[in-house]
Amino acid sequence: MKPSKHFASDNFAPVHPAIFKAIAEANTGHVKAYGDDPYTDAALKKLQAQFGETADAYFVFGGTGANVLGLKTVTESHHAIICAESAHINVDECGAPEKFTGCKILALPSPDGKIRVEQIEPLLAAVGNMHHSQPKVISISQPTEYGTVYTPEEIETLAQFAHQHELLLHVDGARLCNAAAHLEMGLRDITGDVGVDVLSFGGAKNGMMFGEAVIFFKRTYGKAFPFIRKQGMQLFSKMRFIAAQFDAYLTNDLWLKNARHANDMAQLLAKQLAAIPGITITQPVEANAVFAILPKEAIPQIQQHYFFYVWNEATSETRLMTAFDTTQRDVRGFVNAIQTAMKH
Amino acid sequence: MKPSKHFASDNFAPVHPAIFKAIAEANTGHVKAYGDDPYTDAALKKLQAQFGETADAYFVFGGTGANVLGLKTVTESHHAIICAESAHINVDECGAPEKFTGCKILALPSPDGKIRVEQIEPLLAAVGNMHHSQPKVISISQPTEYGTVYTPEEIETLAQFAHQHELLLHVDGARLCNAAAHLEMGLRDITGDVGVDVLSFGGAKNGMMFGEAVIFFKRTYGKAFPFIRKQGMQLFSKMRFIAAQFDAYLTNDLWLKNARHANDMAQLLAKQLAAIPGITITQPVEANAVFAILPKEAIPQIQQHYFFYVWNEATSETRLMTAFDTTQRDVRGFVNAIQTAMKH
Amino acid sequence: MKPSKHFASDNFAPVHPAIFKAIAEANTGHVKAYGDDPYTDAALKKLQAQFGETADAYFVFGGTGANVLGLKTVTESHHAIICAESAHINVDECGAPEKFTGCKILALPSPDGKIRVEQIEPLLAAVGNMHHSQPKVISISQPTEYGTVYTPEEIETLAQFAHQHELLLHVDGARLCNAAAHLEMGLRDITGDVGVDVLSFGGAKNGMMFGEAVIFFKRTYGKAFPFIRKQGMQLFSKMRFIAAQFDAYLTNDLWLKNARHANDMAQLLAKQLAAIPGITITQPVEANAVFAILPKEAIPQIQQHYFFYVWNEATSETRLMTAFDTTQRDVRGFVNAIQTAMKH
Amino acid sequence: MKPSKHFASDNFAPVHPAIFKAIAEANTGHVKAYGDDPYTDAALKKLQAQFGETADAYFVFGGTGANVLGLKTVTESHHAIICAESAHINVDECGAPEKFTGCKILALPSPDGKIRVEQIEPLLAAVGNMHHSQPKVISISQPTEYGTVYTPEEIETLAQFAHQHELLLHVDGARLCNAAAHLEMGLRDITGDVGVDVLSFGGAKNGMMFGEAVIFFKRTYGKAFPFIRKQGMQLFSKMRFIAAQFDAYLTNDLWLKNARHANDMAQLLAKQLAAIPGITITQPVEANAVFAILPKEAIPQIQQHYFFYVWNEATSETRLMTAFDTTQRDVRGFVNAIQTAMKH
Repeated sequence: MKPSKHFASDNFAPVHPAIFKAIAEANTGHVKAYGDDPYTDAALKKLQAQFGETADAYFVFGGTGANVLGLKTVTESHHAIICAESAHINVDECGAPEKFTGCKILALPSPDGKIRVEQIEPLLAAVGNMHHSQPKVISISQPTEYGTVYTPEEIETLAQFAHQHELLLHVDGARLCNAAAHLEMGLRDITGDVGVDVLSFGGAKNGMMFGEAVIFFKRTYGKAFPFIRKQGMQLFSKMRFIAAQFDAYLTNDLWLKNARHANDMAQLLAKQLAAIPGITITQPVEANAVFAILPKEAIPQIQQHYFFYVWNEATSETRLMTAFDTTQRDVRGFVNAIQTAMKH
Repeated sequence: MKPSKHFASDNFAPVHPAIFKAIAEANTGHVKAYGDDPYTDAALKKLQAQFGETADAYFVFGGTGANVLGLKTVTESHHAIICAESAHINVDECGAPEKFTGCKILALPSPDGKIRVEQIEPLLAAVGNMHHSQPKVISISQPTEYGTVYTPEEIETLAQFAHQHELLLHVDGARLCNAAAHLEMGLRDITGDVGVDVLSFGGAKNGMMFGEAVIFFKRTYGKAFPFIRKQGMQLFSKMRFIAAQFDAYLTNDLWLKNARHANDMAQLLAKQLAAIPGITITQPVEANAVFAILPKEAIPQIQQHYFFYVWNEATSETRLMTAFDTTQRDVRGFVNAIQTAMKH
Repeated sequence: MKPSKHFASDNFAPVHPAIFKAIAEANTGHVKAYGDDPYTDAALKKLQAQFGETADAYFVFGGTGANVLGLKTVTESHHAIICAESAHINVDECGAPEKFTGCKILALPSPDGKIRVEQIEPLLAAVGNMHHSQPKVISISQPTEYGTVYTPEEIETLAQFAHQHELLLHVDGARLCNAAAHLEMGLRDITGDVGVDVLSFGGAKNGMMFGEAVIFFKRTYGKAFPFIRKQGMQLFSKMRFIAAQFDAYLTNDLWLKNARHANDMAQLLAKQLAAIPGITITQPVEANAVFAILPKEAIPQIQQHYFFYVWNEATSETRLMTAFDTTQRDVRGFVNAIQTAMKH
Repeated sequence: MKPSKHFASDNFAPVHPAIFKAIAEANTGHVKAYGDDPYTDAALKKLQAQFGETADAYFVFGGTGANVLGLKTVTESHHAIICAESAHINVDECGAPEKFTGCKILALPSPDGKIRVEQIEPLLAAVGNMHHSQPKVISISQPTEYGTVYTPEEIETLAQFAHQHELLLHVDGARLCNAAAHLEMGLRDITGDVGVDVLSFGGAKNGMMFGEAVIFFKRTYGKAFPFIRKQGMQLFSKMRFIAAQFDAYLTNDLWLKNARHANDMAQLLAKQLAAIPGITITQPVEANAVFAILPKEAIPQIQQHYFFYVWNEATSETRLMTAFDTTQRDVRGFVNAIQTAMKH
């Protein structure tokens, strides 16, 4: 594989130069470990500038850690976590949420990756019945695993429903910036301000090297987080190197520029694919993913030149991801390769 | 605090330039995520060159993760893990081993941080008795939390005892290089070759930014590790950035040079302190730690200039750590500050 | 509520006189605790007479304990357990399987309570992929929660599929005797002999007071069970009082007589209900459950005289359970009450 | 072994006739399952009559379940539970507390089975430090595993200390009645009234067949217990059969009579043993245990006639337990056997 030619994952990308520069600049002299350092202070302030003064943020190593520890903080083991069947916490974390929280995951079918109040309501019949795990958190991915984006109204509806029933709303925001870019709204407008209680805020798919922030929008929720983070093996000793990244990420709207670019490239790709007879775009293209059915017989040939994942072998639906550094030329090359393969 | 003036922790240090350079060089183009990349292949080869062809190595984010996941891989929840009372897994991981493995930790008193066969033997009375957690792993820290170093013979004795009783020997090697430097032996000579089964091999206290390797010396032990690592929230997407560090760390004996230097600085510090009447060195100085009783009344004044931790408030025993970048000048300055404070 | 008038649950019944007599007779003198007693020896021999010489059986307190500890014994936390959506382990154990095994539960839709190879096969796409919980056990309920009974051929098909893919087959046999009675086969014929690996064998719904047996059909599987049982809080000190019950239960085919009677009463009830216009029997009546849609408006009046559970509020489908001591008169009285209520 | 001749365990005894009669009388007709029955209501009222109106009680199957679930209810996984090294939760539950609560157990040396504030105080140095499990519960056994009994003043001192530091006090009261009998006080006087927060109240060592009550002295603490009990595999379907036992146990002071008798037999045994030169009583005899050093060479011969456990092989210290049905004749026979063996 030539890794630079692919539409497989935004995780394959390198670190954005501005973020790398920030890491390099933080690599000076000694500072206290475990977050008791000026870099961490500064980064947390920038996070509060984005997410609001009451936002309580903690850095962890990665996205699975962020999701699992955020959920653990607001649950007890007899609770249930409600999410879409396609949710990362349901399918891509090797059972980490169940193992570490002890909770049951109640996964709802969701062709577009979104879940809705009407689906959640029947699950509340279990409330108060000691034989059943007690619903406690609704967890959504924004954008979803299908690249669709919840509108702020959709989130608010879920949050209000949650709060009416003493549930909390958790957001897996591994690609939250792509959602914000699509909606042309601030990060806070689509999280804390519409009722989100706990957020995993990631950057590694949008220009960062590693590190994720767990954000509690009510300060009381996160009180035990420092202990849960340590017990959850997510306390980084040289915290400055995550902090410096977030600082740069939140400076000069880098998060937005990167996300917007990746989204634009997805739009470009979708537009060009949609124009090719025999290709069907299967999901609204709102973030940096394009789901497209390609002709089955053409796929092996295309994959000789560009790596990507087939999402559904039966339908030959593929998941095509763009990144902050995908170029128009990359898109053109890929589309050409597809067209060439389809001619054979 | 002026963080550059301290003898508090080797975790406060920055990243060694050669390692930082390797990170920077890895930041080029796209590669597959989760370790399926050439950087990871190369680093694993270097690890095998050090630890032997049969060594099976996996990268994780940090030291607690390395210890806990290594132990989880070779235990079931009804097992017990035997270690020194001072062990990191016993006191510094906020209960992560118990939480994630479900095992009981049997902690043995150890004034010098080492545990011995005679202490472990009585615990085997529990074997076969269903009311008691079943001893399964002996876990030692090399060097110990007191900066003392097990000789290879001591390790081999523990390993042989372990294997005779169907136990395994685990080593928390967060500072393994300091032990090897002290012993003037190779990394393999003091681990796999003397019977160690599972090793946490760290570098973040000796020049690296982050990342730790879990090494199983029998390939079969680690078979389930990839799943345990993901469920344990320690699978890094952009694995190349840990791999590149280990590659540099194991190139041109950087690990050894850094560790030797830190050890030398500890020797220098210990020698100078020992010459001061009223100061007692309480442990053999073998790695990069000096345990010293300082006059209680002098400590606040010293700490105005140099930060360090008081290990035992009652005895005013302090733990003084050196790092790969501690200078002779740092040591002299610190000793001067101590002497000045003691004169008052 | 007059508890003696109900078709709500076979759990409401008292202890069968023959079993109570056995408990009383065991209440003589001192014997060793925790199963090291002649009553336990005798009962285990009777279990082996039923389930085969290689069956390795252990007593626990209850059904949830039996399921969870049996599953824990043959899984690691990164595994997945496959079952029907309606399975007791999925909906009625308050998340105990997830909490205690750490495994993910993969629940398959199943209108009749059974799961089939075709549904399971796609889940094996996850095998070897470290991001996904690894399928390890197929767990079925025999009879199902809908009172349907797997044929031995159906079980064998599942077992063969399981074994071909290095999975195990677990059976929740809380009402296994009702299934055996329906099939007119021995307990072994529908478990170990058709490939079942682990069985929860219950009696509390068929005449016993408490106690359940976990049976491993290959002796090696259960090796660690004594420890898992203790850690799982299911080791009974005065074990003789479970053992004596199983002994009586397996004497003179009491298990069979009780189950056959309960099944017969379900048949009688179903037959009479089926004859009433406006009532629909929704599942094949094979064990001691009748699922029937009753006219919604009649239910409150019926429930004034007979207690039972509405299974599905939307369709007014009810679950009607018979027990070993349900009488023909009980059935007639209930049917009369239904008819009376429907006339209004 | 002739099990009726032993001083090994109060667990070897049968069920007291009055309790067995209550079980038999409860075995009439159908009642709702899982505790929604009149027997359970009545028994809970009797418990409140003993322990106070605000006591919130729940039945579970056994003692380990009671301890673990009681502790789980008032802890989070990053907490620590402080107890004596000899505590049942530390040595006799195969790691169940660690596995199910995720907490660390901090075990304090205790030659007489009691722990004291002075030992606990240093552990509070960990409070607020995210690297360390956070002390949350002090758990004591009353009487201790050495048969010694905390005075109410000792308990109150521990409770006050606990509450001053936002800790709770848990009591493992598997033999609480023996302590109350020794102290000549009510059950409430030595628990809720002196500050105990959570209690495991057992009876199986004092005349009951099975069943234990978890009692929270502040109602709010137990709010989640029904769910924790189900998830902890300790919810009994035919709850009436535990309830009926507790009802009888708390009727006509049966609990007290049984405990007093067992204590008296221990006194008698201790007195007679103390009079024999060469035998040393090693602990104050306050409940139903006698710890005595017997001549090593005599033990095998004594054990041919009477079974008992050697507590410490090195010192040939034995643990001799009496039960509610131990007779003076049993004691005389045992003492004679000892004297005979010592003559050889």
